[in-house]
Amino acid sequence: MADHKVTFTIENNTDPVVATVSTGTLLSDAARLAGVEIGQPCGGQGRCGRCAVRVSTGNVRRRSTLRLSPQAIEDGYALACQSVVEGDASIYVPLQEKIVRNLTTDRIAAEVTVPADYDYLTSQTFKRIPLTLTPPNMDDQTDDWSRIQTALRIQASVDKVNVSLNSLRYIGKMLRDCEWKVTAILETDPSGGPARLVNLLPCHFKESDPLWGVVIDIGTTTVSLWMVNLITGKVMSQVAEYNGQIARGEDVISRIIYASKNGGENEMRELILDTIDRLLVKACQRLNARPAEIVKATISGNSTMMHLLLGIPSASIRLSPFITAVNHLPPITAREIGLHIHPEATVDCLPGVASYVGADITAGVLSSGLDQTEDMTLFIDVGTNGEIVLGNRDLQITCACSAGPAFEGAGVVDGMRATNGAIEEIWIDGETYEPTYRVIGNEKPKGICGSGLISLLSEAFLTGILDKAGNVNLMLPTSRVREGAHGAEYVVAWGMETGSGEDIVLSRVDIDNLLRAKAAIYAGFTVLADQVGIPLESVAKVQVAGSFGKYINVEKAVQIGLLPDVAWDQFEFLGNTSIKGAYLALLDWRKRQQIADIASRMTYIELSADNTFYEAFTSALFLPHTDLSKFPSVVEALKKTP
Amino acid sequence: MADHKVTFTIENNTDPVVATVSTGTLLSDAARLAGVEIGQPCGGQGRCGRCAVRVSTGNVRRRSTLRLSPQAIEDGYALACQSVVEGDASIYVPLQEKIVRNLTTDRIAAEVTVPADYDYLTSQTFKRIPLTLTPPNMDDQTDDWSRIQTALRIQASVDKVNVSLNSLRYIGKMLRDCEWKVTAILETDPSGGPARLVNLLPCHFKESDPLWGVVIDIGTTTVSLWMVNLITGKVMSQVAEYNGQIARGEDVISRIIYASKNGGENEMRELILDTIDRLLVKACQRLNARPAEIVKATISGNSTMMHLLLGIPSASIRLSPFITAVNHLPPITAREIGLHIHPEATVDCLPGVASYVGADITAGVLSSGLDQTEDMTLFIDVGTNGEIVLGNRDLQITCACSAGPAFEGAGVVDGMRATNGAIEEIWIDGETYEPTYRVIGNEKPKGICGSGLISLLSEAFLTGILDKAGNVNLMLPTSRVREGAHGAEYVVAWGMETGSGEDIVLSRVDIDNLLRAKAAIYAGFTVLADQVGIPLESVAKVQVAGSFGKYINVEKAVQIGLLPDVAWDQFEFLGNTSIKGAYLALLDWRKRQQIADIASRMTYIELSADNTFYEAFTSALFLPHTDLSKFPSVVEALKKTP
Repeated sequence: MADHKVTFTIENNTDPVVATVSTGTLLSDAARLAGVEIGQPCGGQGRCGRCAVRVSTGNVRRRSTLRLSPQAIEDGYALACQSVVEGDASIYVPLQEKIVRNLTTDRIAAEVTVPADYDYLTSQTFKRIPLTLTPPNMDDQTDDWSRIQTALRIQASVDKVNVSLNSLRYIGKMLRDCEWKVTAILETDPSGGPARLVNLLPCHFKESDPLWGVVIDIGTTTVSLWMVNLITGKVMSQVAEYNGQIARGEDVISRIIYASKNGGENEMRELILDTIDRLLVKACQRLNARPAEIVKATISGNSTMMHLLLGIPSASIRLSPFITAVNHLPPITAREIGLHIHPEATVDCLPGVASYVGADITAGVLSSGLDQTEDMTLFIDVGTNGEIVLGNRDLQITCACSAGPAFEGAGVVDGMRATNGAIEEIWIDGETYEPTYRVIGNEKPKGICGSGLISLLSEAFLTGILDKAGNVNLMLPTSRVREGAHGAEYVVAWGMETGSGEDIVLSRVDIDNLLRAKAAIYAGFTVLADQVGIPLESVAKVQVAGSFGKYINVEKAVQIGLLPDVAWDQFEFLGNTSIKGAYLALLDWRKRQQIADIASRMTYIELSADNTFYEAFTSALFLPHTDLSKFPSVVEALKKTP
Repeated sequence: MADHKVTFTIENNTDPVVATVSTGTLLSDAARLAGVEIGQPCGGQGRCGRCAVRVSTGNVRRRSTLRLSPQAIEDGYALACQSVVEGDASIYVPLQEKIVRNLTTDRIAAEVTVPADYDYLTSQTFKRIPLTLTPPNMDDQTDDWSRIQTALRIQASVDKVNVSLNSLRYIGKMLRDCEWKVTAILETDPSGGPARLVNLLPCHFKESDPLWGVVIDIGTTTVSLWMVNLITGKVMSQVAEYNGQIARGEDVISRIIYASKNGGENEMRELILDTIDRLLVKACQRLNARPAEIVKATISGNSTMMHLLLGIPSASIRLSPFITAVNHLPPITAREIGLHIHPEATVDCLPGVASYVGADITAGVLSSGLDQTEDMTLFIDVGTNGEIVLGNRDLQITCACSAGPAFEGAGVVDGMRATNGAIEEIWIDGETYEPTYRVIGNEKPKGICGSGLISLLSEAFLTGILDKAGNVNLMLPTSRVREGAHGAEYVVAWGMETGSGEDIVLSRVDIDNLLRAKAAIYAGFTVLADQVGIPLESVAKVQVAGSFGKYINVEKAVQIGLLPDVAWDQFEFLGNTSIKGAYLALLDWRKRQQIADIASRMTYIELSADNTFYEAFTSALFLPHTDLSKFPSVVEALKKTP
């Protein structure tokens, strides 16, 4: 096999380094040989996109380009962990983002989902109209705004246009400065009402000019933002960041409590606006755009996030009988909200169903297609909260499970978010009870994130460390089971291996919290299935939304009884369905209408008022469940373990 | 004749004083006898309302109550100059406002004009709906805003209602605080669109509760404001004040120049908003109301004032070809404008025709009825600017005369505004050439206001002090004609009589300015009549709008050739037609539509581009005109003078 010279040039580093490797060597391996550190938070599976490098010259074969945008590929980028050397090559290694925030959130957000040949143009609401106006003179003293209206009527057959006071304040000077050649950006009303002048540009547009829209998904933990070119319908930039409100509470309940305090509402509003501002700046920098060029925003998020963004008091969401101020929001201008895009841009806040089933779920259902299929489908979004929808095109029922954020690492002593240093997957040897694990960022472990906890619980159960009630078997011949400060526990990592020097353990208290969380979700499934009148196991499809679905090992999640035991090919993992739904609504008013219909038609079941819930919950407090017949694959797996 | 004891108690003064007078004595005379000073700026004609006193006990007959509101009369007020003693009486004398600003502007504004049995209710746009809501519970978790919408549908058959973000911010708490009993104030859309929630009150309304609207006329010099009870259609309070922008320029041109400077636009906007704020506070205090209770404002004013109020650049109004940014303004919320009424209140800025024919004229035409009559009518509004309309129900043409503010006292050495110390009327003895005059506020004269200048010019002409070209006849046997610093002049008041100790004179330069001003207006009439194709003298009616029309002596105005020489009964004096039109538009959307129609249909003639204007102007630069046949009554008057 031939030897190839691979030269690595590192950003901000003048000396290139070289590795000589054979055909078929992974670029990431070549880099290691050359002493170049390339972060691989996903462990080299091509899932996180963090090892992207640019191939300056030479031959490299890309096995997978997941997480790379078409633009990035065109620019020569490749994933080091997924590309093999086939000749001499020169590789440029961009500076690795060392900041945990960016590392983590990019890991969550970075995905490219441009629907192929989607016919958005027929149901787009924006018009971009070049106007050439006759300047006024003594025989034609028509006022500036009437002159524009007349031109729109004659040159573009637009009959009625509304205008804001703010636009009236600048049009006169602009018309004169640009010598009466402008481009009007209109937002039309699909129901036939007047159009609205959103922006006026001091020149005629070029066909290649983008027209920017933005979609924002405000998660309790993570805020994601996509910049969309409304002309092509393409997503041109995707960024994400932790919600700045996190420091004021991890879950919606603590956020509401904080917001209800004196001044808290404003502070929460400013925190989320700041987060969005930072994301706008970041997304725009990549595209050489300005936030003020964005003419529309479509926003998704749970009901609490929506209230906090808009400065609408959220206290009643938390208190029985759990009421939102508003589910279907009117269109609001960016100026009113304080969003720093074009002040006249419409901000379309998508509609929710109830206090704990918000726009993230209605948009998610839209993008999942649940409301269009004949098949009875279970849609679940386990983020900071757990929301579930069961239904098909004929009916949709929904509920929210107060699972708590256990699967985001909260309420578990050594739990942590899915960030650098988190154990994200664990395997336990059935004979020695010794674990092996994978850590995000390849660092010393600091704790265990949600996917790690699920995998740990499952492995511990299958290997007999835990019984079906979650009790730790202290009789096992290993020092890893012991009596700890919080009851019996299993040691996942000894202090000498960990970042803090302390043991990382799973204690009885942690196990109880995790069991309660997964039981709440499973009981939710059960209640919905009862309502529809079908056994849960007979659903045709299980759609798992959110980052949760992207990183957990589903087999393990079934094994602990968190997900129903259906065949592998019945599972779908959809990623951030909330932002995808918002994206479709941004481009297509019919999709927007469809979300409103979903929100209006969906039946919400309040679990805390449901008689069958408590029983279902109690039955689900076991591994995987009191009724093992519901989990045939787990029965099989138990048979295989020693 | 019986003697009566009249006791006067003066505000802030512990010792009452007494006069003994006979039946039929004027209260003002009784007061003088008792040594009580009661101001009578109008000279005791019952025109100014400044001598209002309260009759605590006893018999007094009110000959006239002009300028007293129905409330004031009910409270026992009487005009001292118009009420006679008919028995013993006890009179309370309120503190006289010594401040010139209030004195003068109240003189201009105070008028009560409630149209009798006007059927406003059929075309009112406001609905006041009491709602009793079922509180939410676990079986009905409808969001607050949907709950209100449902109640409006079921309890009041209101199908579609829009709501602002701001309203959504307070409804939740209000509903809970007031135990789900509220009153919704809706503004409906006469063209069938959705209604709009303007306000929500935390209780059911009482039938007697007022619902406040406000009309504002923004004059270049004076801002007038009426508080209107939208339930009864009655004007409940009328206040006026100088436009706070006066210190930045007397006329619209100087205001535009100031506004075009750095920061000037904002300053002008704030100045007018401040003026309106003060008026709101004043009007509300009288009614025990709060500005935030006002749910709608209708605003009239010339195009420059409208631009300055809204912060829309006005520079192009001043520069050829004289273009406004916008004539027909969209409805704007008070929040956007910064008007301190209810932030969700619609502010309806009435439409104008052109840079120098604004909403004050379209509203004026509406209230004058010109657009509804068969008779060819001349409508003139000589304020700080001079606007003219000629027409009837079939056509209306209009122009603006750059008369300049000479008739408001500017551009004339001893000219001044119609405020305390201004000579407002003058008579000259045809044999001695000695003048007598009346001074506003009965003070020593400080100068001559517009009505005084007209009367002076006319008297000087008729007595031969001036020839038809405006030359002062220095040959007359009186020391009052003399050569002065600004050419030949006539002394109206010697220094020993005046406030300043200086002579008050009318000089050749002043005369030229006044001739140019009146010639510009008369030439405007001529051009319009030419356009319509009738002789000016054949118009059926001359409607004189504005305070100008209220205080000038029309005979004198005809004698100097400022007004056309038609029969006395063809003149109508309409007062502030601008605010009256706005008042009608506030109450009645059909009237509002009518103003829009007037604005759209009216033909504007730009005099500076009109070939016949200059000739007409030159012919009118004489007293009364080169063509005396146009002024038969003046020919008659000249025959009668020595």
